[in-house]
Amino acid sequence: MSEPQPTSPNAIFIGRPGSRSRLDTPALVVDRPALDRNIAAMAAHARATGVALRPHVKTHKSVAIAQRQVAAGAHGVSCVTLGEAEIMVHAGIPGVHLTSPPVTAAKLARLAALARAPHHGLSVVVDHADTVVALSAMLRDAPAPLAVLVDIDAGQGRTGCSVEAAPALARAVRAAPGLSFAGIQAYAGHLQHIPVRADRRDRSLRLADRLRGLLRQLAADDLPAPVVTGGGTGTFDLDPEARVFTELQVGSYVFMDVEYLRALADGRNAPPFETALFVATAVIGVNQPAYLVTDAGLKSFATDGPKPEPARGAPPGSRYEFFGDEHGKLFVPADAVRPPLGTVIECVTPHCDPTVNLHDWYHVVDGDTLVEIWPVDARGKR
Amino acid sequence: MSEPQPTSPNAIFIGRPGSRSRLDTPALVVDRPALDRNIAAMAAHARATGVALRPHVKTHKSVAIAQRQVAAGAHGVSCVTLGEAEIMVHAGIPGVHLTSPPVTAAKLARLAALARAPHHGLSVVVDHADTVVALSAMLRDAPAPLAVLVDIDAGQGRTGCSVEAAPALARAVRAAPGLSFAGIQAYAGHLQHIPVRADRRDRSLRLADRLRGLLRQLAADDLPAPVVTGGGTGTFDLDPEARVFTELQVGSYVFMDVEYLRALADGRNAPPFETALFVATAVIGVNQPAYLVTDAGLKSFATDGPKPEPARGAPPGSRYEFFGDEHGKLFVPADAVRPPLGTVIECVTPHCDPTVNLHDWYHVVDGDTLVEIWPVDARGKR
Repeated sequence: MSEPQPTSPNAIFIGRPGSRSRLDTPALVVDRPALDRNIAAMAAHARATGVALRPHVKTHKSVAIAQRQVAAGAHGVSCVTLGEAEIMVHAGIPGVHLTSPPVTAAKLARLAALARAPHHGLSVVVDHADTVVALSAMLRDAPAPLAVLVDIDAGQGRTGCSVEAAPALARAVRAAPGLSFAGIQAYAGHLQHIPVRADRRDRSLRLADRLRGLLRQLAADDLPAPVVTGGGTGTFDLDPEARVFTELQVGSYVFMDVEYLRALADGRNAPPFETALFVATAVIGVNQPAYLVTDAGLKSFATDGPKPEPARGAPPGSRYEFFGDEHGKLFVPADAVRPPLGTVIECVTPHCDPTVNLHDWYHVVDGDTLVEIWPVDARGKR
Repeated sequence: MSEPQPTSPNAIFIGRPGSRSRLDTPALVVDRPALDRNIAAMAAHARATGVALRPHVKTHKSVAIAQRQVAAGAHGVSCVTLGEAEIMVHAGIPGVHLTSPPVTAAKLARLAALARAPHHGLSVVVDHADTVVALSAMLRDAPAPLAVLVDIDAGQGRTGCSVEAAPALARAVRAAPGLSFAGIQAYAGHLQHIPVRADRRDRSLRLADRLRGLLRQLAADDLPAPVVTGGGTGTFDLDPEARVFTELQVGSYVFMDVEYLRALADGRNAPPFETALFVATAVIGVNQPAYLVTDAGLKSFATDGPKPEPARGAPPGSRYEFFGDEHGKLFVPADAVRPPLGTVIECVTPHCDPTVNLHDWYHVVDGDTLVEIWPVDARGKR
């Protein structure tokens, strides 16, 4: 009866009214109506501005959420790890695009196997000639060519080749047996959290100018780029303006977090997307006068940015700090009623992507009720 | 053939000579001989100083490692989450002790079920009278009483009651049907990383004085404490000197990390334990002149402390920085040969506990060969 189940300890509470306030903690919580509104809002934006969506799985790592995004009109999904791509392909998700280049023999072997497995669209980026050669050697006799995009360094200095080196790499892809040139990727990760919108816009448009020049050169080389993929939640409403990207790899919009709420605040009266992701934690210690002790620490939240922000269940004006791997400190205003021992509160996450990657299960709520549990299918998959 | 397997992508390399340098990355790596030397060294220290060991599962979250610790003489294991305790009990590990108090109805129900399941020793801490009452109500008719220890706030201000409040709580446990008073816990988490050994020693001894006073008072109340549990890797050689603790909850010694290598350096010529844990990452980008790009970022390492430190495979004097969720920057000295595309290097982790919690598999190596893969059984379990 107390044998460990391969599911969340909260599975027994599904469907019970008021269960959201009695979750076993720490628990990752998704507000399903808010999630669906975010998915619909981005889909409407994409239709209105004439770009396609290939939302990024790195944020949610969930087949269920990817299916919702495709149902709302996305023509595929982006993945940063091969493990994410394998999960999505095997779940039947169409248009799976790998946004970081596979390089080692171990990765190339897995990718080649995936390319030969049944799928509804698979593409990958490269940024080095050696990878083109290695990939071609593995796929030269495959039944169909693998779609390959050239990754352009958009200024972040991470993956990607220079704009100057891109035409030669594209020609190498075209010439390589087993591969087909499918376009370019230019992901401007360094622009996504720039807090001043005008600054973010200015730099996005200058990037677009450089890409337009490259696309003209490729077209002149008889290498038209059918796909120009990139973008993110931080530039979601700036990239279409540039009329360069054919699709956006937006990720965090589905959930939002403290960082993005701040980054997207400038120039707006209200955030364009709602917070749909929270971490639930319980008050487990009331012996200290200055604060309450909770059960969610470094192992429940991303720690690379701001602090978690108390929301549901916490008195307005409360603050949260980490207190080790498995504990937190909740400070409530002096005039507030201290939540009693066992109270479950929720916090907005500092940074949604790495927070999600710490958890195995999404506890899906509608109002006060736990309605579903979705696995974080690609958690930790590389 | 490319269906996702419920195991590491590295399983196919087990036993192949030289496989350590060709791992699919990022990968958590354990040097098995170094691990075993650390386990043996701590066991020898405990025997020599007359304390028992109840090593902490929070560090490794692994049944295989817990079994090695018990085989070397540990009389049980400590767990900070109920999920860790459930895993260990169901794996047959003896003497499972829960070091953080269960408080919510959800946790108490799971604990009660675990107490009624077959086990070889289970104990839990409390620090509040309400928890004693709730636990007793659930276990009053259980076949055997549950061992309960009173958690004392050792100065960290996290869990635990005051020394002054402890006797009354101990009396409440003794009087409660279904529970038995088994001793006290005093975990001084705030002392573990104090860099100057003399300072760490001084504060540990003062804590011990306060505990001795409490133990005398409990004995006078006819509440002798059979177990006095606490301690950690930072004070492993100071706690026995105090002659108060009957057992040590040491955790990180099995692996070591950048933080503990620094914390334990003062007053010693060499670290008392070897680094046995690494994260393997591959060079996947060579297009930038100033650094190489790798595939291990925020989602592969703890981010709450120092940077990862390059070790095996990297030129001496190399530096590592995070470069997003799934990438890193490797800086090599100007006069070093730049590792080529695809090179696998290893890094010492900043902080071993939260790093382990990001991974699903231990890639166990002996020299250059991958010899076993152990699951991180309690990863993410709360």
